[in-house]
Amino acid sequence: MNPTIELLQSHRSIRKFSDRKIPGELFETLIRAGQSAATSNHVQAYTIIHVVNTENRRKLAELAGGQAYVADSSDFLVFCADMKRSTDAAERAGAEVVRGMTEQLLVASIDTALMAQNVAVAAESVGIGLCYIGGIRNNPAEVSELLRLPEHVYPVFGMCLGYPGQNPELKPRLPLASILKEDYYQDEHDQAQVAEFDSTMREYYLARTGGNKDTNWSEQLKPLFTSKLRPHMRGFLKDRGFEMK
Amino acid sequence: MNPTIELLQSHRSIRKFSDRKIPGELFETLIRAGQSAATSNHVQAYTIIHVVNTENRRKLAELAGGQAYVADSSDFLVFCADMKRSTDAAERAGAEVVRGMTEQLLVASIDTALMAQNVAVAAESVGIGLCYIGGIRNNPAEVSELLRLPEHVYPVFGMCLGYPGQNPELKPRLPLASILKEDYYQDEHDQAQVAEFDSTMREYYLARTGGNKDTNWSEQLKPLFTSKLRPHMRGFLKDRGFEMK
Repeated sequence: MNPTIELLQSHRSIRKFSDRKIPGELFETLIRAGQSAATSNHVQAYTIIHVVNTENRRKLAELAGGQAYVADSSDFLVFCADMKRSTDAAERAGAEVVRGMTEQLLVASIDTALMAQNVAVAAESVGIGLCYIGGIRNNPAEVSELLRLPEHVYPVFGMCLGYPGQNPELKPRLPLASILKEDYYQDEHDQAQVAEFDSTMREYYLARTGGNKDTNWSEQLKPLFTSKLRPHMRGFLKDRGFEMK
Repeated sequence: MNPTIELLQSHRSIRKFSDRKIPGELFETLIRAGQSAATSNHVQAYTIIHVVNTENRRKLAELAGGQAYVADSSDFLVFCADMKRSTDAAERAGAEVVRGMTEQLLVASIDTALMAQNVAVAAESVGIGLCYIGGIRNNPAEVSELLRLPEHVYPVFGMCLGYPGQNPELKPRLPLASILKEDYYQDEHDQAQVAEFDSTMREYYLARTGGNKDTNWSEQLKPLFTSKLRPHMRGFLKDRGFEMK
């Protein structure tokens, strides 16, 4: 194994940061590393909002479900899927542009995720920690208004960046055989693999909490899938021009 | 800059591969590196199909729009967004599960992209080249049938992996100021930045083709947005249980 693979395998979300700030030049290097990620048809369907304004960071921390580190980390980014820049450019070049296709939502969301993950890896390679903030989709209309996002742009997730003020354990992952299949989707061992992983996670939670958190992976997923998760997303995306035609 | 950031910034898609095969143990290391990526609520909403069967790889190369390297690379992967494993697990644990939410499509697609980008970075760190195959969404129903994907699983993109048989130039990216904004989405310089990038891309295409390809970024985007891009995706996803409620 080489240092890059070791780095990838040592990822943990950081939710407590030191006061040390990320230098501006280094920050730009991380974003440029993000831009180097693969992009579908060279569209580069993303825009990052670097939220510097203190009051807006406080508001975003609230809108994301009361996550203090959104306000407290050195830097906070909102990664937006952006179908505006590229479709506007094609329109100015004379195309009669079709917008709102489901495929465009996918392209833009995937482009954004690939570039964000490069930013994450670049950050960790210089000792910066991070956590993704999916909670930005708790109140995406309010977030969009605060960041003045135009139509055809939507906030996919946030990212807190900063020097770690904690050193959490690695969180286990599903058995390799569970997520990697040869030639066909075979799930005859799925229940056994999930049961194995449930044991792993139970041990992990017990060890981390001195025996207090007696749960497992399947149990932890229950509340997530019992309720309608972020039921506003369909209507929100439609309002923003992602009509999913 | 450190070696990891240099590596990220040196990414190019590889579409021509040598005959050298990726050793099995190394292959597994790359996938494990993928698993270390951040995942929304620990859901790990992805499954990779490693397509080994030669006939199936030939079929997939055709289904993806006649991309020979899908059949010729050392390894070909189909990265699938998987909401089946986790919702099944929650259901077995006693939850009355809600499926088909738009948010679940996003979570699974983003989880899949983050993990794939880690696989890509890990691969490049050991000298393996790759290209993403969005063309897998040209005929997603046929791909799903071939790979026997169950409901609540859909093929997001493919990835060719192998040792490079070509050494392409880096492809330029949009100016940093175009994709990185402070506090608010500001697009008053957008046209100028795109015009600057159009010049950059024109030079790039001319230089690569000995003066034959006289085009730019905006021109290249026109056919992509003039037609309805992959108009089957909405219906396909609905059929697969991604109803986008």
